[in-house]
Amino acid sequence: NDDTEELRKVIAQQQEVLKSLEQRLDQTEQRLEATADQVESSSSTTASNKTTIGGYGELHYNNYKDTDAKVDFHRFVLFFGHEFTNKIRFFSEFELEHSIAGEGQDGEVELEQAYVEYDYSDTITTKTGLFLVPVGIINETHEPPTFYGVERNGVEKYIIPATWWEAGVAANFKLAPGIAVDTAITSGLNVGNDYKIRGGRQKVSNASAENLAYTSRIKYTAIPGLELAATVQFQTDLAQSSVGVDKAAATLIEAHAIYQVDNFTVRALYATWNIYGKEAEALGRDEQTGWYVEPSYMFNEQLGAFARYAEYNNEAGFSSSSAVESSSVGINYYLHENVVLKADYEELGGSKDSQGFNLGFGYQF
Amino acid sequence: NDDTEELRKVIAQQQEVLKSLEQRLDQTEQRLEATADQVESSSSTTASNKTTIGGYGELHYNNYKDTDAKVDFHRFVLFFGHEFTNKIRFFSEFELEHSIAGEGQDGEVELEQAYVEYDYSDTITTKTGLFLVPVGIINETHEPPTFYGVERNGVEKYIIPATWWEAGVAANFKLAPGIAVDTAITSGLNVGNDYKIRGGRQKVSNASAENLAYTSRIKYTAIPGLELAATVQFQTDLAQSSVGVDKAAATLIEAHAIYQVDNFTVRALYATWNIYGKEAEALGRDEQTGWYVEPSYMFNEQLGAFARYAEYNNEAGFSSSSAVESSSVGINYYLHENVVLKADYEELGGSKDSQGFNLGFGYQF
Amino acid sequence: NDDTEELRKVIAQQQEVLKSLEQRLDQTEQRLEATADQVESSSSTTASNKTTIGGYGELHYNNYKDTDAKVDFHRFVLFFGHEFTNKIRFFSEFELEHSIAGEGQDGEVELEQAYVEYDYSDTITTKTGLFLVPVGIINETHEPPTFYGVERNGVEKYIIPATWWEAGVAANFKLAPGIAVDTAITSGLNVGNDYKIRGGRQKVSNASAENLAYTSRIKYTAIPGLELAATVQFQTDLAQSSVGVDKAAATLIEAHAIYQVDNFTVRALYATWNIYGKEAEALGRDEQTGWYVEPSYMFNEQLGAFARYAEYNNEAGFSSSSAVESSSVGINYYLHENVVLKADYEELGGSKDSQGFNLGFGYQF
Repeated sequence: NDDTEELRKVIAQQQEVLKSLEQRLDQTEQRLEATADQVESSSSTTASNKTTIGGYGELHYNNYKDTDAKVDFHRFVLFFGHEFTNKIRFFSEFELEHSIAGEGQDGEVELEQAYVEYDYSDTITTKTGLFLVPVGIINETHEPPTFYGVERNGVEKYIIPATWWEAGVAANFKLAPGIAVDTAITSGLNVGNDYKIRGGRQKVSNASAENLAYTSRIKYTAIPGLELAATVQFQTDLAQSSVGVDKAAATLIEAHAIYQVDNFTVRALYATWNIYGKEAEALGRDEQTGWYVEPSYMFNEQLGAFARYAEYNNEAGFSSSSAVESSSVGINYYLHENVVLKADYEELGGSKDSQGFNLGFGYQF
Repeated sequence: NDDTEELRKVIAQQQEVLKSLEQRLDQTEQRLEATADQVESSSSTTASNKTTIGGYGELHYNNYKDTDAKVDFHRFVLFFGHEFTNKIRFFSEFELEHSIAGEGQDGEVELEQAYVEYDYSDTITTKTGLFLVPVGIINETHEPPTFYGVERNGVEKYIIPATWWEAGVAANFKLAPGIAVDTAITSGLNVGNDYKIRGGRQKVSNASAENLAYTSRIKYTAIPGLELAATVQFQTDLAQSSVGVDKAAATLIEAHAIYQVDNFTVRALYATWNIYGKEAEALGRDEQTGWYVEPSYMFNEQLGAFARYAEYNNEAGFSSSSAVESSSVGINYYLHENVVLKADYEELGGSKDSQGFNLGFGYQF
Repeated sequence: NDDTEELRKVIAQQQEVLKSLEQRLDQTEQRLEATADQVESSSSTTASNKTTIGGYGELHYNNYKDTDAKVDFHRFVLFFGHEFTNKIRFFSEFELEHSIAGEGQDGEVELEQAYVEYDYSDTITTKTGLFLVPVGIINETHEPPTFYGVERNGVEKYIIPATWWEAGVAANFKLAPGIAVDTAITSGLNVGNDYKIRGGRQKVSNASAENLAYTSRIKYTAIPGLELAATVQFQTDLAQSSVGVDKAAATLIEAHAIYQVDNFTVRALYATWNIYGKEAEALGRDEQTGWYVEPSYMFNEQLGAFARYAEYNNEAGFSSSSAVESSSVGINYYLHENVVLKADYEELGGSKDSQGFNLGFGYQF
């Protein structure tokens, strides 16, 4: 009948539509499969490229009483890393200091880190190569946006002496959540007969390795906002068995605290060297000591202010009158969390007498 | 009836097909969603990795009358950049000159650029850090495929003096389409008592910053193929307030034009220093001037030829007879738009008398 | 009738479902198109970023009789490459030796490779720039995981003298599967009047290019596990036409074999210089010769051991008694195929008399 005939037509049309839909769906599925494959293969390609680059830099302007104002691109640093497997990775820090290096120039090119890290287990990680000595606050973390003040503080420069790297092996033990111990056996300092700590850094460049350094650090970070850490280092001879120089065993003890509550942070650090030997004693350099305390406040995400009192004495074996006293105030302005403009004013007292201000610009990526 | 029964069957089959299609479409949609998510996340990963690397290099062979032929990898340069946000970015240029740097070696490692750029608005961009002074043609754009001649021209070497970088702050103002102004306040030259411009570059390495430099440039590029630019720089004392040396304020004026019609290009540049001070005057270095004109023609995408006449005089305060006159002709052959082989012949006259040819190889990426 | 009415309803519902399916499929197809486009554009972006980074490094500890033990980050190397097209590519090797470079420092920054390679055809590839001379085993392949022994062997250091790079042009011809010839025209050595090969390397740093070097190598690798190669180099004057020094043409002949069967490998190499000139003859340096043989065995993928006997003589023109004889044994332990710890013991005899051991750590990526 007509009704049925009409229905038949409609159904026939639907058949056509269904066929067409099926074909389109077939094509869509195939196309989707191809696209998904492409995504898969391209993301696996990306994943296999495990080489990373980063860096930091800092430009300084220093204006102190009785000396010429100076501008200096103090440090230009590149990081190169590579992940061999998820347990074995390489990291390095390559630095150009003072913008230009060569015969007759002020600057230097330095390798400050180059080591392979190996996760022996979930709680033990080892390091082999050239790495930063686990001591103090600045030595291992010195990108400009991470600290206050244009120049690094004197205690961690002349007592610790950051940036301080050695060659050797190290291990990090996670004893419990928030408690970790680092131990390292490395090359040591070679102070010569003036026993100045900072000048003793051999920088792993044809370095005398007659006498090694043994370092241990314990770090406590179980309470959010608080870091407590202490390092002890023992060296069997700071003179590296040099002929005509006293044998000079030495111990470095360092402790520091960082405490952050809301926008307020305080950093405090103490470090002291004991050098055993008559020559060091005669120069008053058998004891070399320093400490500082640095409260700071972030007004918002962009602006922070700090004050710091620091004291260090590389002839503490004689008397406290040879100490350098430094009082600083200043600000950090963050254009971006990784780009910072800095300004500070410093009064130097004690065995130094000067005052001046510094402007700085720094970045990390 | 039978008809209806038959239709019923067909419709029941269609129902099955429809269900199956719906299920397949459901699955396809889900799969597509997942694939799209994956694409999204992988491209956001890629997007977050905003660190870029590039570089350029040039190998030179120089053969001049009365001197030994030399081969030298003159410049090996790496660029490192990072995009912090779409308004804040970092750029740097790291260079090894003469292939080897160290005690007793000819070469140097140099930081020639390291600054953060910030787009304050659509028309204003600021720079902070160590950057190239906005002057001349070669100083800011010196990759070997971008210019003719194996060695850079003498005017931009001894008068401008490229490559010339300083530390400070700068701003670029886009006044109108094709019209831009650059201004910069930077560290300045420190020429000592010989008043030689090129030797005055402190390279931001523990540089004296008693006296600054103020630079302005206007650049016109509104007509396709034409670039007109002029720079004025004022320095309050080229001697950086050194004791026992005259105060020597100075002004640099530079102007250049680049005009390209089809395959023909001409470049012309003029630069002059006026140094105010009796010591500079006594040496004839109170005026130091140079200019050049360089027509060139690209025969096809691979081969171009040029001629250049250049004159520069670092004792123009005395007389024009101390000028160095240089006439050059040569070719660039592009193996790729970023890989170039060069050859040129140069006649030196005026206060210099020599002739020779140069071969060069350069690349950029 | 009722039947028909009921069918009508079902068919109407199906119509709805079909419409809905069509709409969903339309949307799915559009979405898929967009996703595929995104994948396409992101993978083309990735594909166009053809800049690659790699590197290697080695830290050495040397403890020899009668000298201080030393630790030294001997070499820190970065590779930068770029693919311009699938036929044109750039490669470079940038090195910091001895960890620190600058005025008064032991180390150096060096450019050891920087060339553009161009595939002229399937069988001919050319090189232009600064590249490693095609000679010996170590000179072109010196990443620490690729060889035994902490320090490189004396023959390839004092006779060949690796690492040896020059500037020029070269071509590689694949004559047949497993047979290739390399030819190069490059800058040459400049030995001065002591005719010491190693000290004659000018390192393409303002190098005298009065006299060139012509090198050819044939390499046979058609049998799996076997490499045979021989190089001949001729230089017209090792003194680079220096005034007051004899003209000293010279020929270097080198041949080596590497043969690997299962876990056992043996390397053997011979190299000799003939220098024509009375001054060289008077110093016994008209002939300078060396050879070594080095069997080794890999116990498993991680541990291998080697022994090596080497002899080299930079005054072979006088007598064989001036030869240095070196006998070494040692092991390589691979933490990863690209991370190696090394230890070896060496006895030095002949014109040298010493003994000692070396520890090494190296990586490549």
